[in-house]
Amino acid sequence: MSKKAVFGIDIGGTSLKCGLFSATGNLIRKDEIPTRKEENGKYIFDDIRAYIESVLIQEDMSKDDVIGVGLGVPGSVTEDGTVNKCVNLGWGVFNVIEAAAKNLGIDESKIAVGNDANMAALGEYWQGSGVGYRSTLFVTVGTGVGGGLIIDGVPVNGANGAAAEIGHLPIIDGLDWQCTCGKTGCLEQVASATGIARLAGMNNAKEVFDAAKDGDAKALEVVEKVSMYLAKGLACVAGVTDPDVFIIGGGVSAAGEYFIERIRKYYKMLVFHPSTDTDIVLAKLGNDAGMYGAARLVLVKGI
Amino acid sequence: MSKKAVFGIDIGGTSLKCGLFSATGNLIRKDEIPTRKEENGKYIFDDIRAYIESVLIQEDMSKDDVIGVGLGVPGSVTEDGTVNKCVNLGWGVFNVIEAAAKNLGIDESKIAVGNDANMAALGEYWQGSGVGYRSTLFVTVGTGVGGGLIIDGVPVNGANGAAAEIGHLPIIDGLDWQCTCGKTGCLEQVASATGIARLAGMNNAKEVFDAAKDGDAKALEVVEKVSMYLAKGLACVAGVTDPDVFIIGGGVSAAGEYFIERIRKYYKMLVFHPSTDTDIVLAKLGNDAGMYGAARLVLVKGI
Repeated sequence: MSKKAVFGIDIGGTSLKCGLFSATGNLIRKDEIPTRKEENGKYIFDDIRAYIESVLIQEDMSKDDVIGVGLGVPGSVTEDGTVNKCVNLGWGVFNVIEAAAKNLGIDESKIAVGNDANMAALGEYWQGSGVGYRSTLFVTVGTGVGGGLIIDGVPVNGANGAAAEIGHLPIIDGLDWQCTCGKTGCLEQVASATGIARLAGMNNAKEVFDAAKDGDAKALEVVEKVSMYLAKGLACVAGVTDPDVFIIGGGVSAAGEYFIERIRKYYKMLVFHPSTDTDIVLAKLGNDAGMYGAARLVLVKGI
Repeated sequence: MSKKAVFGIDIGGTSLKCGLFSATGNLIRKDEIPTRKEENGKYIFDDIRAYIESVLIQEDMSKDDVIGVGLGVPGSVTEDGTVNKCVNLGWGVFNVIEAAAKNLGIDESKIAVGNDANMAALGEYWQGSGVGYRSTLFVTVGTGVGGGLIIDGVPVNGANGAAAEIGHLPIIDGLDWQCTCGKTGCLEQVASATGIARLAGMNNAKEVFDAAKDGDAKALEVVEKVSMYLAKGLACVAGVTDPDVFIIGGGVSAAGEYFIERIRKYYKMLVFHPSTDTDIVLAKLGNDAGMYGAARLVLVKGI
């Protein structure tokens, strides 16, 4: 049996989620190591190197068996692999591919790097709820609203790394709360965990959904409103790229089918008719999506 | 000198716009022939055949010199070349590639077909205002609002052929006019020639722009409002695919820089900041864009 395998590593502000995958996408093992952010995150690559070396020994693999290493990072990444500050890691501006190659002792041609939301989208597309579809928008509804766009299996980054930033679609009228981006009217202002809690005057989104499920009128009104706005965002996406599935993830998606069926209801009302039956489904891979996608990026790039 | 060349034919409801291009995109000749719509448009392929045969003789070319024939059609087209009724041509549901191959006596592998708006987008991208850019949204502001999306040189069709249907983005609040699609709130309801005239209570969009330029307060208000809504649509597109240029064409774009500079102003206010400096430019190729794009489609597909 070939030992050839690919590493997918999702570099988060709290931990590195690391997966070793066969070339066909089977997860061989997964590990989590804490993110050392001290001194501008300079130890992160050392820790990845030590991790990879230790896995190779444990799995009886040589460096030649490594197809490549895919990295997901919390920030925008240009085509050539340059990050423009990953504040959660303490990183400044530098080329991640060059830095990873040097630190890991692996050729640059074997390293791939992408934005973490895009990697999560690619992971869900490859091995999660996107299996069997061609194009998807993956939406994370958490503290903010983010996402990743996949067209025909390839992540779309955008000219400014801002593709699938649907949290900042300017589609909320009549609300003058200022978004973290400085504008008003951003989808994220209502359709995020933060926005949901604020609209309902409660502590968190879970409390709002629990109250709505218990029949609280105000909470239910907020859930309906938020579902409508999120559906409006998806209808806008449908009018631009017309994907064949929307995948909803992030903390708020824990509200489950109760939430999804409301999004579906409003989506059908708002979207242009050819896209009415586009599927809207819950994400499957949870926090593992990013490491799956990072591994997939290596394979997509044909390294 | 090689005689190898490609035909690009934009099949419209009034005429077929036909271009013969070298493989590198030089326009060798262009012709226009009337569209015979009688008997469900059954003569259209006969006319194209006669046209191609006549051009080959005039240009001293053989059939072997034809790299391929690209066709733009007014309606949605699936991946395999099937149209789902082109009402403007009288066409029903059939496979255009198969029909064209049979009627033209040219191998199916040498035929490419795409939606006319996508072809116009591809034409502008290839030889018009999109030269030097990687990804674009082309918007036609005419009787309705349509468009075509190009990412990294490839037209994006969408799962239901509804990509770039930005006329039906549900982003107009507080207006209960019903759109031709059956919904309310569609961008096209205000940002089309029809919508502009209706908002101003004038006969046509040109009259509105002329009055605005002459200082008519009501007309100016309408122009500002329409520019704002169109900019909102572009800001939504930026939040989904983040193209590096927006190209504005269609009849209303005759209003020129006067219109574009207003769209730019509102776009900068509404868009998520990474995409603030995305270019917004006027289309260049006018009604020829579709035949350019149809020829390009043949070359993109590597026929």
